Amino acid sequence: MATDLARKEQLPELTDRIVASYHDIGTINYLGHCPLPSKDAIVDIAHDLTEVIYPGYRRRQNLHLGNVVYHIGDLIDELHDKLTQQIARALRHRFQLRKPVSCVDLRKMDFEPQGQERAISFLETLPEIRAVLTRDVQAAFDGDPATTCLDEIIFSYPGLEAITIYRLAHELHRLDVPLIPRMLTEWAHSRTGIDIHPAAKIGPGFFIDHGTGVVIGETTDIAANVRLYQGVTLGASSFPKDSQGNLIRGQKRHPTLEEGVVVYSNASILGGKTVVGANSVIGASVSLSKSVPPNTVVVIEKPSLRFREAG
Amino acid sequence: MATDLARKEQLPELTDRIVASYHDIGTINYLGHCPLPSKDAIVDIAHDLTEVIYPGYRRRQNLHLGNVVYHIGDLIDELHDKLTQQIARALRHRFQLRKPVSCVDLRKMDFEPQGQERAISFLETLPEIRAVLTRDVQAAFDGDPATTCLDEIIFSYPGLEAITIYRLAHELHRLDVPLIPRMLTEWAHSRTGIDIHPAAKIGPGFFIDHGTGVVIGETTDIAANVRLYQGVTLGASSFPKDSQGNLIRGQKRHPTLEEGVVVYSNASILGGKTVVGANSVIGASVSLSKSVPPNTVVVIEKPSLRFREAG
Amino acid sequence: MATDLARKEQLPELTDRIVASYHDIGTINYLGHCPLPSKDAIVDIAHDLTEVIYPGYRRRQNLHLGNVVYHIGDLIDELHDKLTQQIARALRHRFQLRKPVSCVDLRKMDFEPQGQERAISFLETLPEIRAVLTRDVQAAFDGDPATTCLDEIIFSYPGLEAITIYRLAHELHRLDVPLIPRMLTEWAHSRTGIDIHPAAKIGPGFFIDHGTGVVIGETTDIAANVRLYQGVTLGASSFPKDSQGNLIRGQKRHPTLEEGVVVYSNASILGGKTVVGANSVIGASVSLSKSVPPNTVVVIEKPSLRFREAG
Repeated sequence: MATDLARKEQLPELTDRIVASYHDIGTINYLGHCPLPSKDAIVDIAHDLTEVIYPGYRRRQNLHLGNVVYHIGDLIDELHDKLTQQIARALRHRFQLRKPVSCVDLRKMDFEPQGQERAISFLETLPEIRAVLTRDVQAAFDGDPATTCLDEIIFSYPGLEAITIYRLAHELHRLDVPLIPRMLTEWAHSRTGIDIHPAAKIGPGFFIDHGTGVVIGETTDIAANVRLYQGVTLGASSFPKDSQGNLIRGQKRHPTLEEGVVVYSNASILGGKTVVGANSVIGASVSLSKSVPPNTVVVIEKPSLRFREAG
Repeated sequence: MATDLARKEQLPELTDRIVASYHDIGTINYLGHCPLPSKDAIVDIAHDLTEVIYPGYRRRQNLHLGNVVYHIGDLIDELHDKLTQQIARALRHRFQLRKPVSCVDLRKMDFEPQGQERAISFLETLPEIRAVLTRDVQAAFDGDPATTCLDEIIFSYPGLEAITIYRLAHELHRLDVPLIPRMLTEWAHSRTGIDIHPAAKIGPGFFIDHGTGVVIGETTDIAANVRLYQGVTLGASSFPKDSQGNLIRGQKRHPTLEEGVVVYSNASILGGKTVVGANSVIGASVSLSKSVPPNTVVVIEKPSLRFREAG
Repeated sequence: MATDLARKEQLPELTDRIVASYHDIGTINYLGHCPLPSKDAIVDIAHDLTEVIYPGYRRRQNLHLGNVVYHIGDLIDELHDKLTQQIARALRHRFQLRKPVSCVDLRKMDFEPQGQERAISFLETLPEIRAVLTRDVQAAFDGDPATTCLDEIIFSYPGLEAITIYRLAHELHRLDVPLIPRMLTEWAHSRTGIDIHPAAKIGPGFFIDHGTGVVIGETTDIAANVRLYQGVTLGASSFPKDSQGNLIRGQKRHPTLEEGVVVYSNASILGGKTVVGANSVIGASVSLSKSVPPNTVVVIEKPSLRFREAG
């Protein structure tokens, strides 16, 4: 209709001002010739891995024991190539962060052999990850009266989705792959509302019901057969700083949950020294920052509520 | 660059090990020739249904009363076919779960007539669902001082999105369609952070503001004109087990909210015998597991907070 | 297979009943010839803007200071056209709401000049928005011991994603653009679980960690260098109504947080007169509806928990 073309022709000046801000600020752009890992490629890898782990539920239909080997063989071959490339990029990025190096020099270095090494080591763990996830699916069935069959859990439970992506990301983290594990778990966080740091340690038979708002911090340690509900925080209670006032990174700041613990909705368990003993139950909305012996039930003291008539 | 091709050529061995795990484990793959419902197809159906319910807001633009019949007629025709196919698959899956049957025999059986029956019965309810949703949209306008017009609610309120998908899923649940209702509500959960079980019963004029973290369990019963805020749990307080220690499924485990009840942010109402009487108000962060008479306000007793100077 | 074709041929009757409901109900359809803003177009714009703000992290790879000007120039040119069109539609929609006008007359009016005006004014603010976001990224690095580098934050932190989209939406809100700001922030809400109203005022150096369940209401006022955790509500405590019982819209209903305030997980701060003084710390799960002086720590009085043995 009636846009003012003269005004539109002044847009290049604005572009110049924006590009100038890339020079001036320097920290929130990445204009270094050497590409970073690609978020789209990582999401694509996550979908491929899910297809390998739960064949027959997602993309390809009409799979049977006679044709599944072709489908999976093809996926593994592609995953090898995609993971090799993305991991190489992440390793190059970390190299550059640790030791300033010119783009020209960086482009001469080859990170693909290290990428391939880690990609193959990672893919080798898939049968083992499947075995653990089988126990997670069973735990969901055993722990939720609303479910009707295992397939419903695989199709639609956000808890299982978040745990699946976490278990994959955790293996990549163990193989010392930078950036990508967190990109994976934050993608799952976006889809499920469940935020599990890839460095957390979680045993088999883990079940998260409903899940929105769950946060499991970096140094959390969870034994086998633990169950959590929506809104549970396994968090830090304080962040120690060094003598220069910088945060100390990597210390144990998040709690330990022993085998068979259940934590009900919106409870918070805080602190790196807090240990919840085996088979203990933490009630809804409890806020806990000290250890609890095994076989203990912790609930909020009779809730101090006030009742009055409306109006 | 320099990936090691010899190593890559060993990937087929890994594929074989993964495929072997499908034989060994058996529970988290679906390799039975007969396809399950497709998640992508279900999402596609959800978008089509939303377009029929709120025409003019999403996909097709320039709709008017003269051309809308063609657009809707076309969508309904396609929905008939897609729903028939997906419901037939879900029914076949349940049949197989209940009575072990060989794949060959299963493929001879025709579930499409039952699928079509339910698909048409479902589509017949759309005018009625629209009438109820109109009251939900109005309730959002009446309950939120931040909104400017009804259209803003239809465009952007996650509460309305979750309620819309729930109302559709609930009709499919009432028509005894397996798997698909939960796939729909979990899709909405992923997009909105609001987790409503398709079997819950919810009257018209329902409004959820903000909504992230809301959980409404399977046997919840909500009357007309109820309003909830973010983080509200309408949950179970315990899970009865039978004499073999298995969960008893299907019992009333979640609360009842009578007409006009308001539940503020992060409150939890738990238990199948808990009834919140008409026009009662449950305050923010209250945790309630006993019944409340009509016209009652329940708040946390003057919060026991401790104040001290920092540092 | 065996769908009943005779039954399918009765679908047009159902279509007619659905279309009749558009006539009868009238409020939840938009059949007015003049298209509304398109949600897909708005999401597309959000992706383009993110690419301009954080070049090199998302879509286009291999960007460097020699080619970035072409990429950004192209994006800005397209953004001008897309924003002009979408803002014009939003302005036309508001015009129509305020003053009933026939579709024929409305189509004769040209809202594009006003749309272009606002589109250009908005694009002019991008360098300034980048400068503020740089401080937000740094605040995330300074506030989270789990992060390893700034790039990880830009790639994967949901808090930064929500704040980025909020800052863009807030500028559009300030330029008096209807509908679109809320569509943007609710899109970010869907992806992050963080619900920030576009009208809220938020200073630089803002950090939200984890973030799921955070709600920041319309009239909230947040100064520089504030930090929030998951589940924090900055909400209203009551909604005043006028003498006809209608909600009064636009009043200050949400709290004020002064510089350097930290609010831990699942705390709620409620009410338009509640002011949290500079550098105060609000502990996890605190529910606060009165003002707090500067430099104060507020925690829940020693939690009244009950411990008993299980079984």
